[in-house]
Amino acid sequence: MDILVINGPNLNMLGYREVGIYGDLSLEQINDKILNHFGDKDIKIDFYQSNQEGDIVTKLQSSINNYNGIVINPAAYSHYSIAILDAIRTTNIPVVEVHISNIYKREEYRRKSITAEGAIGVISGFGYYSYILAIESLGNYLLNN
Amino acid sequence: MDILVINGPNLNMLGYREVGIYGDLSLEQINDKILNHFGDKDIKIDFYQSNQEGDIVTKLQSSINNYNGIVINPAAYSHYSIAILDAIRTTNIPVVEVHISNIYKREEYRRKSITAEGAIGVISGFGYYSYILAIESLGNYLLNN
Amino acid sequence: MDILVINGPNLNMLGYREVGIYGDLSLEQINDKILNHFGDKDIKIDFYQSNQEGDIVTKLQSSINNYNGIVINPAAYSHYSIAILDAIRTTNIPVVEVHISNIYKREEYRRKSITAEGAIGVISGFGYYSYILAIESLGNYLLNN
Amino acid sequence: MDILVINGPNLNMLGYREVGIYGDLSLEQINDKILNHFGDKDIKIDFYQSNQEGDIVTKLQSSINNYNGIVINPAAYSHYSIAILDAIRTTNIPVVEVHISNIYKREEYRRKSITAEGAIGVISGFGYYSYILAIESLGNYLLNN
Amino acid sequence: MDILVINGPNLNMLGYREVGIYGDLSLEQINDKILNHFGDKDIKIDFYQSNQEGDIVTKLQSSINNYNGIVINPAAYSHYSIAILDAIRTTNIPVVEVHISNIYKREEYRRKSITAEGAIGVISGFGYYSYILAIESLGNYLLNN
Amino acid sequence: MDILVINGPNLNMLGYREVGIYGDLSLEQINDKILNHFGDKDIKIDFYQSNQEGDIVTKLQSSINNYNGIVINPAAYSHYSIAILDAIRTTNIPVVEVHISNIYKREEYRRKSITAEGAIGVISGFGYYSYILAIESLGNYLLNN
Amino acid sequence: MDILVINGPNLNMLGYREVGIYGDLSLEQINDKILNHFGDKDIKIDFYQSNQEGDIVTKLQSSINNYNGIVINPAAYSHYSIAILDAIRTTNIPVVEVHISNIYKREEYRRKSITAEGAIGVISGFGYYSYILAIESLGNYLLNN
Amino acid sequence: MDILVINGPNLNMLGYREVGIYGDLSLEQINDKILNHFGDKDIKIDFYQSNQEGDIVTKLQSSINNYNGIVINPAAYSHYSIAILDAIRTTNIPVVEVHISNIYKREEYRRKSITAEGAIGVISGFGYYSYILAIESLGNYLLNN
Amino acid sequence: MDILVINGPNLNMLGYREVGIYGDLSLEQINDKILNHFGDKDIKIDFYQSNQEGDIVTKLQSSINNYNGIVINPAAYSHYSIAILDAIRTTNIPVVEVHISNIYKREEYRRKSITAEGAIGVISGFGYYSYILAIESLGNYLLNN
Amino acid sequence: MDILVINGPNLNMLGYREVGIYGDLSLEQINDKILNHFGDKDIKIDFYQSNQEGDIVTKLQSSINNYNGIVINPAAYSHYSIAILDAIRTTNIPVVEVHISNIYKREEYRRKSITAEGAIGVISGFGYYSYILAIESLGNYLLNN
Amino acid sequence: MDILVINGPNLNMLGYREVGIYGDLSLEQINDKILNHFGDKDIKIDFYQSNQEGDIVTKLQSSINNYNGIVINPAAYSHYSIAILDAIRTTNIPVVEVHISNIYKREEYRRKSITAEGAIGVISGFGYYSYILAIESLGNYLLNN
Amino acid sequence: MDILVINGPNLNMLGYREVGIYGDLSLEQINDKILNHFGDKDIKIDFYQSNQEGDIVTKLQSSINNYNGIVINPAAYSHYSIAILDAIRTTNIPVVEVHISNIYKREEYRRKSITAEGAIGVISGFGYYSYILAIESLGNYLLNN
Repeated sequence: MDILVINGPNLNMLGYREVGIYGDLSLEQINDKILNHFGDKDIKIDFYQSNQEGDIVTKLQSSINNYNGIVINPAAYSHYSIAILDAIRTTNIPVVEVHISNIYKREEYRRKSITAEGAIGVISGFGYYSYILAIESLGNYLLNN
Repeated sequence: MDILVINGPNLNMLGYREVGIYGDLSLEQINDKILNHFGDKDIKIDFYQSNQEGDIVTKLQSSINNYNGIVINPAAYSHYSIAILDAIRTTNIPVVEVHISNIYKREEYRRKSITAEGAIGVISGFGYYSYILAIESLGNYLLNN
Repeated sequence: MDILVINGPNLNMLGYREVGIYGDLSLEQINDKILNHFGDKDIKIDFYQSNQEGDIVTKLQSSINNYNGIVINPAAYSHYSIAILDAIRTTNIPVVEVHISNIYKREEYRRKSITAEGAIGVISGFGYYSYILAIESLGNYLLNN
Repeated sequence: MDILVINGPNLNMLGYREVGIYGDLSLEQINDKILNHFGDKDIKIDFYQSNQEGDIVTKLQSSINNYNGIVINPAAYSHYSIAILDAIRTTNIPVVEVHISNIYKREEYRRKSITAEGAIGVISGFGYYSYILAIESLGNYLLNN
Repeated sequence: MDILVINGPNLNMLGYREVGIYGDLSLEQINDKILNHFGDKDIKIDFYQSNQEGDIVTKLQSSINNYNGIVINPAAYSHYSIAILDAIRTTNIPVVEVHISNIYKREEYRRKSITAEGAIGVISGFGYYSYILAIESLGNYLLNN
Repeated sequence: MDILVINGPNLNMLGYREVGIYGDLSLEQINDKILNHFGDKDIKIDFYQSNQEGDIVTKLQSSINNYNGIVINPAAYSHYSIAILDAIRTTNIPVVEVHISNIYKREEYRRKSITAEGAIGVISGFGYYSYILAIESLGNYLLNN
Repeated sequence: MDILVINGPNLNMLGYREVGIYGDLSLEQINDKILNHFGDKDIKIDFYQSNQEGDIVTKLQSSINNYNGIVINPAAYSHYSIAILDAIRTTNIPVVEVHISNIYKREEYRRKSITAEGAIGVISGFGYYSYILAIESLGNYLLNN
Repeated sequence: MDILVINGPNLNMLGYREVGIYGDLSLEQINDKILNHFGDKDIKIDFYQSNQEGDIVTKLQSSINNYNGIVINPAAYSHYSIAILDAIRTTNIPVVEVHISNIYKREEYRRKSITAEGAIGVISGFGYYSYILAIESLGNYLLNN
Repeated sequence: MDILVINGPNLNMLGYREVGIYGDLSLEQINDKILNHFGDKDIKIDFYQSNQEGDIVTKLQSSINNYNGIVINPAAYSHYSIAILDAIRTTNIPVVEVHISNIYKREEYRRKSITAEGAIGVISGFGYYSYILAIESLGNYLLNN
Repeated sequence: MDILVINGPNLNMLGYREVGIYGDLSLEQINDKILNHFGDKDIKIDFYQSNQEGDIVTKLQSSINNYNGIVINPAAYSHYSIAILDAIRTTNIPVVEVHISNIYKREEYRRKSITAEGAIGVISGFGYYSYILAIESLGNYLLNN
Repeated sequence: MDILVINGPNLNMLGYREVGIYGDLSLEQINDKILNHFGDKDIKIDFYQSNQEGDIVTKLQSSINNYNGIVINPAAYSHYSIAILDAIRTTNIPVVEVHISNIYKREEYRRKSITAEGAIGVISGFGYYSYILAIESLGNYLLNN
Repeated sequence: MDILVINGPNLNMLGYREVGIYGDLSLEQINDKILNHFGDKDIKIDFYQSNQEGDIVTKLQSSINNYNGIVINPAAYSHYSIAILDAIRTTNIPVVEVHISNIYKREEYRRKSITAEGAIGVISGFGYYSYILAIESLGNYLLNN
């Protein structure tokens, strides 16, 4: 199972950025925790982060034929990027959307996700563990589809 | 770890109800799958289903001191039950909201969740596996809080 | 033909409640009129009334295999009960929604029906006769489907 | 009892137009079915169809003193014609609004009826049988008012 | 001064239609009152009434070069006819919009006028006298422009 | 006939203020034109201008028993002053609302009038002549009520 | 004077639930305070609490002929229960709505009350004392009506 | 206990103004009733009425250090005066908002109160008795804070 | 290839009407330009203009079996005529909607087209050339479908 | 350069009012800081504060010919006073709007400014320094226009 | 004539992406078809595609002085990119917006185009042929402006 | 004091772009004016411009520890870039938002700023001088915080 984890804008600043909301783990630490968690399983995980809406679009496109599943945290772009939604739909790969914080407890404009329309499911609010649950869900999904 | 799984209205009809959306597993089959999944772990899981908004409120209240975590699928009530939201907040127990289908792909009025404001997180779109991910998330949450 | 007539909240107070809008017939008198109207036809009609949203959900579920058609007046719940809508869809039995008053002449929040999305049709504004028309429509529907 | 049945725009194309929604009966066939249904009763039924909003207004006006009741399917005009609403109110004759399809299952802009504010009641979703129910409802109404 | 008075849908039923709102004068009686009021002045007044949105458009177009001013009561069409608004703008003749009732005291959907965007001014609420004021205002307008 | 003409905020700057919209007549010149127009009739006209919402409320209250009719141009307050609306309703004197410009051609927030709900009618768009038409309308109103 | 005090969902958890908002008195303590306050007056007070929307509807209905006045705190149901509104209107008994917290300082969706349309008045924000004021207001109301 | 009672626009016309809604007591009579009600208690009550939004702001400011509590009926200003809301917040004195009529039964634009965000609570719908309840609530509040 | 070009209300006044927006060509001149442009191709083009919503509906209906494609400029009716939308859908002939001006640069209420939901495509903003592009697009469409 | 600084409602309470938001400087201290800052420049600065919407309108009007520039902090009136907007436009003097707090971080209803439509620019969020920046901006503006 | 064709996000995936909506031609095949179509005319056509909003902005800027006309399909960015709208306006080159699918038949959020406000016209719904029509329209536009 | 000035999309085209709104100074000329203005003060100013939303996010992130203050003109991105808002919040450096034109006089969609929620303040409408005021405001802010 080859998984790509895509992180959107400002997630490279995790551990520094609004710690009260996002926790004090850096993105590297989160990625390590993910790798450790699945270390003994037969899963290959690649990580990609970009602040650029268009780069995320391009990365999603290039994942075709290269990955079995994608975990994406589009961060701020979740709420308005129809371009990323279109890219998700283009891939035809199962995509799971994750959020570190529970978006239903945030500002009004963060409570809806436009990109989630293209995902098979959404996991929101569990900190770094949202990613781990997402990868598990992909494992289960690929087993059954 | 003592977990209570609460299912809202019409979920007792799973396997019969709108199979194209909710899948062909009955609620009993889902519950069995959950128990099997966690069978070898030290987790006690109770199940509760009701079509009554008020009964779900009461069950949430009575779970205080009896459970470490709650998984709730408020189904239709997710979209308008401020009463269940208030009950979730009353419990002070970590609550994870799950949905079998991805609510972001459904009718406009199903795309928002009022009850999710009270949950620590939301998992939506993975069929019966949403429940399994939710229990895992609770395990992780309880370990760290 | 076995028909179930379900009446929602406050309809047990007909004849007493806001007579200017709902008329002075009690629910029993309406039920008698319905029975009389169809007395010489081969139709069995059961009546059910509840003020409980969840009980109406449960009744709808239990009607599967027991009735050929359902007439429902969800009353106030018409305007917000997604749970009853889901239950209607679950039954797979033809359901006709009725209203005693013409909801288009009422307060703004009574002019839309969320439950009607699940019905085959809606009859609104004819007093007790709305029920009689609904049963006739079911007779016709069952004859042709 | 003299009844006028008014059909609005595009209903002259029934049987040809969007058959999946409106059925395969032509307007003439529907009218015949109505006449047959009431053939042995003492009811005179006239039919009128127009694509013109203004002609429907004029027809409604000219029905004063000529009919005891009116059945109207304003079709597309239901959703925006204040002019037809005003004409309905002008007649002082009982008017029943009918729809062939259940408007609550259609596009958002078809889910409300501005003309229904002037009707005594609305019947929606029963195909050609909506007209038959409407005439029956008028019979009952005239008997009691 | 040649003035055209255009009356929209259902105004031909004045004196019969919703008398509590529109008064008990017929359109003919109103027209006579207008003629009497301006009888000794050098004003020629033509009257036109139609229930057809398109006929009112055509009449407005044909008034070019034939009239110095137009008084229009678009009635129900005031609230949605962009076609009549466009026709008013096409004429380049000063147009005054009148209403018999005060539209600010009516249903929400009657409180705005789309056609009034094309008029030089609006007079609303004075019964038949709205027309007389409108013609006076045109006299004053033509004197000064 | 004793008439009070009330002018709201910034109307004391007429002739200086946004001349393209309101014209180049000062308020004094407008008042003179009004007096001249009705000079030979048995009408007493008082003028009052204030920039204060509350003073206009008080003036309206004090007009009870002192005037037969009131002409009011609430200017900016038309669009939000429920206090002036309440004062108009308190007087029980016929009130006509006037506007110098046609409010339907202005910014969105000027297209509705909250105060007009309390007036018998509204005259909008005829420059200083709006006042003259308003006084005439009051004359006609008082003759007939 | 026989008074019924109805408390809606989650109010049985007062003293435990969101203490910062609702205070640390339990419902029993509040009820005792009410009884003590009116202990020396000729008032009989019954208490009822339910988490069920439908039970509150039923209780309201059964109060007819049994009580002179009703105090109701519909809690979360205030904001969406048209069923309870209808039940309040059905009783024809004076009903006063109370809230422990000031709903105008809460989340947007708590700032409106649909049930209050059926009450004679609303008292919001005074903690347990809201109930005492409500009973006093009923005393005064019954004295004068 | 020194209490200031502030009444907003048009309340000086009570007993004359829209008697069907506000009752036939004049403001002086209401004030007398209040004084009588609390006559034998150690409460000093001052009354202030103004039609001016700004004067009410100023009065609220000047009440600092002079009063223990304020009862305010902002009347029409309740619905839009952010200035009065700011003044209420400035005082730091407990403020109770009252309304004579139940604002939830009035026009849409009267159903919300912007000023109530600054009050400790709101009492609406009990005629003159709203003031008496408000003063009592202040007594209770001051005793406990 | 037989093409019908339908023009809606006020387009018969092109060249006279709001020249700054619509240009100075008359409808006849535009039609000539169209004919000239396609003169040497094997295309038969008929022209139809009406100010009547209902006539356009009827014309669309009658085009069945008579034309291969339709170009329609519904003008003002684009923005609200569900009746014309229904007629377009009824025809089953490919319909292309055109606008002379770019509707995205116009008033808010002109920026959406309800009729365009029934068209295969929309061409907006190219003056008379919009029609020529539309006919070309039909040629291409018919070649490929 | 003669500058007028106008402060709106409740700004006379600065230093006392909601110190967490507005800071602990009194208005007098702010005015002194402004005078000190520009003390050695050739600028005459007058200060005006009022809680009255109408007085601010009048002051703006009377500033014509007396000042080169105006700094205005309309406070609460920014959000709804069309009257002050009209007065700003009447002056024809360059007006700069200031806010002590950043209105984009405040309640929803404080995030828009209706009065700012009439200003040359807006400065928001810098405490007392907003005024100093505003005067500088006027200096620069007057130099270049 | 030098034309630049700009394609926005995900259009590089044409032929692969949501083929049911966008067709099975790749972008290269579309470009070839365009070149072939205009091969014998004196038109130079350059192609540019980017998934980056900012790159499209930059490309539009750099086209100044290099092209006579621009065809742009902003894809997803059409619906929210004010930045691209601003860039279009900056160029002062005639820009035509195209869409492969008819945006009026898509999700609600795809039915409006913010970028189209800057274009001379819009062509939507004709598959690859939208581009060909756009270039023709530019040819005609440049001939006449 | 080290200041970074960030300019968003299309601002590199100043002097060329919509000169009527943005003035005829190029960005270089503006930057020179800024440097000249602060030339004799101990301020180091760096300039950055990008059309890319993501690059602006990255630049904001990289400014941490490198600058004392940031001036940002997000241009079009102000109105929808939650990503830039998040980046501003991430920096923890004081950020001042500037606009060359007064956004309150522009199109509806330019009147709100989502990015301004993260800034300490906003300066809008003063042309190039907005930047100078912003830097001054930062100087003052840094002195006092």
